[in-house]
Parts: sequence; structure tokens; C-alpha cells
Amino acid sequence: MTEYGYWQDVPTRWKDNDHYGHVNNAVHYSVMDTVINTWLIERAGLDLDGAGPIGLCVESHCVYKASVSFPDVISVGLRVAHLGTSSVRYETGLFRADRTLVAEGTFTHVFVDRETRRPVPIAEPMRTELAKLVNA
Amino acid sequence: MTEYGYWQDVPTRWKDNDHYGHVNNAVHYSVMDTVINTWLIERAGLDLDGAGPIGLCVESHCVYKASVSFPDVISVGLRVAHLGTSSVRYETGLFRADRTLVAEGTFTHVFVDRETRRPVPIAEPMRTELAKLVNA
Amino acid sequence: MTEYGYWQDVPTRWKDNDHYGHVNNAVHYSVMDTVINTWLIERAGLDLDGAGPIGLCVESHCVYKASVSFPDVISVGLRVAHLGTSSVRYETGLFRADRTLVAEGTFTHVFVDRETRRPVPIAEPMRTELAKLVNA
Amino acid sequence: MTEYGYWQDVPTRWKDNDHYGHVNNAVHYSVMDTVINTWLIERAGLDLDGAGPIGLCVESHCVYKASVSFPDVISVGLRVAHLGTSSVRYETGLFRADRTLVAEGTFTHVFVDRETRRPVPIAEPMRTELAKLVNA
Repeated sequence: MTEYGYWQDVPTRWKDNDHYGHVNNAVHYSVMDTVINTWLIERAGLDLDGAGPIGLCVESHCVYKASVSFPDVISVGLRVAHLGTSSVRYETGLFRADRTLVAEGTFTHVFVDRETRRPVPIAEPMRTELAKLVNA
Repeated sequence: MTEYGYWQDVPTRWKDNDHYGHVNNAVHYSVMDTVINTWLIERAGLDLDGAGPIGLCVESHCVYKASVSFPDVISVGLRVAHLGTSSVRYETGLFRADRTLVAEGTFTHVFVDRETRRPVPIAEPMRTELAKLVNA
Repeated sequence: MTEYGYWQDVPTRWKDNDHYGHVNNAVHYSVMDTVINTWLIERAGLDLDGAGPIGLCVESHCVYKASVSFPDVISVGLRVAHLGTSSVRYETGLFRADRTLVAEGTFTHVFVDRETRRPVPIAEPMRTELAKLVNA
Repeated sequence: MTEYGYWQDVPTRWKDNDHYGHVNNAVHYSVMDTVINTWLIERAGLDLDGAGPIGLCVESHCVYKASVSFPDVISVGLRVAHLGTSSVRYETGLFRADRTLVAEGTFTHVFVDRETRRPVPIAEPMRTELAKLVNA
């Protein structure tokens, strides 16, 4: 758990549990996306309603290791596995409070112009901040 | 079931069922909203990405009569209970395939300017179309 | 904001924002439900996977006062407006960090036998705990 | 589009669109899960509330090719890429009405005993039905 450069707690919600009584597999992606976007906004200058580029998800993957259930809180670790010209691949670890590994997920953003939705290079200060999470 | 002027089927999804094995209460609102916005787009000229006014929800209410569970399909009836200058109150009925009443919900939109988010009068052709659903 | 006997913070998620760039109206119900069930589990003895009664939502209502948007944190106040034999009506207030009132919602649970889904009286210790939230 | 042995249409919902005005990446997984479970229930004998084994997701993956937006309907093709003793890996294709490929996803179920949550062999009639979707 020391391998991630940024950590955030995401509390589960009542509705996250599905018919089988545990957090539904799609929720894990929503949790990853929440942590990534919170970090982008708070640390790397992403402005949701501004004019700058936005990150669109082009690929995601998750391996589920243990179940988690409401009202558990999920601790999410975030690092950057690859930082390209326009894209970034994040790696995340989701843990229960007792440090049980719940899931490992990857998530790839391509940054695009907000209007044309065409790829654009990742600019400063976002590039420098993303680089800090590489090999964290 | 003849009291509604517009009908639409909304299939449930796996994730709609919660820990208690039935469609979660918040999903009913999402189902109503889906039917209302589908109708607004297809029949009344709402353009999600255009420059015209948008409808924001200012009040909603639901009474739950019977449970519904994935993979049930929910049949939703829609009518207009009140059509004001800028606002409209919809009434909906949610039914299972066997015609069991699942829930009755109300949903109030205020139409606002997309940028300022200030109320604006409901204009044509939307007003005429909404009027057709009154006392349907 | 002193009128609620229990408070809990619920962080928004990326996916809560809808096409209009603010937290979707159905999410408010999910937030209320999360706070109510967290309280029931942590304070009032609800056991999600046990054999005891469960609370099913039979009616809900929300008035929306101001928008809220990811990554805002929603502070939720909870009180009990009416405590009956088998049912309880909760009242909630949702606030932004700057204390702006986002929404006021009501939510009614009927407690039922988990298997038969027939109403049963609310027993101890839940009744005493719920009573503490009345006129809080 | 002839490579999938089972097809199902899943209409989008208003709430599927996120802040960027298209269906959120986590929704694609919910759509795949819906189609897989509908098929399991209707064709392969899965009983959500019975005593038999259930399929838990242990790995999922998605590559996003084109955006899709409410009120689009998503056509989902399903096939089986690998059928093991206890596990099955599904492959799905998500398409817009104009046949544009929206996303390709994989989803792996391990079938487990409902109570112990330990893997069990996939039995008949499910095995025969799953085999029909291999190399479909």
C-alpha cells in the first residue's frame, strides 16, 4: 500500500450493493473515476466548466479480489503507469478499512479539446503533476 | 391505465436491484426522468446540446405500491397535471407487465435559460405539445 | 442547521453529475437513503444480512433549492418527523459546504419481516434510537 | 456484427450521461452485466432468488471506440470466448443504431455457491447453453 502516491477514501452508498449483497462491479469504475477526477481538479488544474482540455476514458480494466459491502469505506490508491503525449494510464488499488485488497484497476484518459473532441497534448501544470505520480 | 397520454417501456438493469433484491427506490425517479426527457426530445423539441431552454427538476415525489425486480420491464404512463408559464408538473404511473401498479410519481420541471439558469416562459412548440398531455 | 439530530457528510462522485453539469435529482434520494441506512446500522441495530426486520421505502419527496456539483461534499442532516408502530418518516436537509441549502427531502420506511415482507412493529433498540431523533 | 450469438437492445437513460454530455464509462459495464444476466435468466436457468449457484464478476475490461448519448439505444452482442469448469469469459460488442461500434468489453464470471461463495462447476442446463455462444 506504499506504492501509490495519492490516497482518497470513498464511502460506499446504500445503492452500491446489488442483488447479491455486495458492491456491484460497475461501481468500482465509478469509484476510480471519482478519485482520478478529484485529483485532476484539486491538484492538476482541471476545470470542469472551463475552456481547457478534458480527459475521456478510452480503456478501463479491473480485477476483483475481495468483496466490499455498504457501509464500508473504500480507500483508493492512485498512481500513473504511463504518461504519453495526450494520454495517461492510471493504476488504482481499492482497499477495505482492514487493508484487504478489494480490486486493482487501470483507467486510460486521452485528453481532448472540449469542443472538437480531438486529442491535444497534455500541458502544464497538469503534465508536471501527473509526472509526480509516476512510479510513486 | 387509460389515463396517461404517453407510454414508454423502460427495461430494468441488473444494477437496479439493491441489497433487498428489488429495484431501488431512487431508480424510479431515474425511470420517470428518462421517460419525460425522451418525450421532450422526441415530441416537444428539446435539444440537449442546443441553445434553447432546459428543464430543471425543482420537486419530485413518489408513492411505492409494489416491488419490481430485474429483469422486469416497467411500463410508464405520463401526463401533465399542471402547465404554468415556466413550469410543468408531470404525473407518472409505473406498472409491471402484469399491470400491477408499482408506483405513482410526480415530477416538476422549471424551464430555465441554459446559461443564466433563470426561469423563462415555455415557448412553442413545447407548450402546445405539453398541453396535449393535460387531462390526457 | 441546528434542527437535525444526526449529521453525515456524503462526497459526490464524478458520475453524479448529469448532462446539465450538476448532481442529478435522483442522486439526492440515494444520498438520503445512504445516511438513513448508515444511521440505522451504526446506531439502531439494523443488520443487513441478519434475520431481523428491514425498512422498505413506501414514499419519498424532495424539494430542490440549489444545485450542487462534483466534487462538492454534501452535508446531510437527519431527523424523525413521525414515529409510528411500523413506520417512520424521516426528514433530511442537504447542504453544500458553504451552508447553502441544496434540498429538503422526506423518506418513509415501513419495517417488514424480511421473508414475508409484511409490516411488523418497530422493536427495541431501534424504537428508542429513532425516538431520540424526533424533534431533534 | 454477425459474430455474436445473442443480441439485446438496452435503451440509455437520462442519468447515464455525465458532465461531458455522453454516456459515462461505468454505464457500459452495467449494460454488459444486464445483457449477460438477462440471457442467464431467460436462456440458461439462472434463478436470482433460488438456491443454485450465482455468477460473480472477477475481471472486466472495456475499450471505448465512440461515444453514445441519451436517448440512444445500445445494441449489445454477446458471445462466449472461454468456457471453463467454474468460469466463463464473455465478449460483448456495443453498437449505436447506425451500427457504429461504441465499445468492446470482456466480462468474466466465476460461478459460486450462493452461501459459501466458493467456486462450483457450471452444471446443466447452463453449460450447454453457454457452449452454444462459443465461437458464435
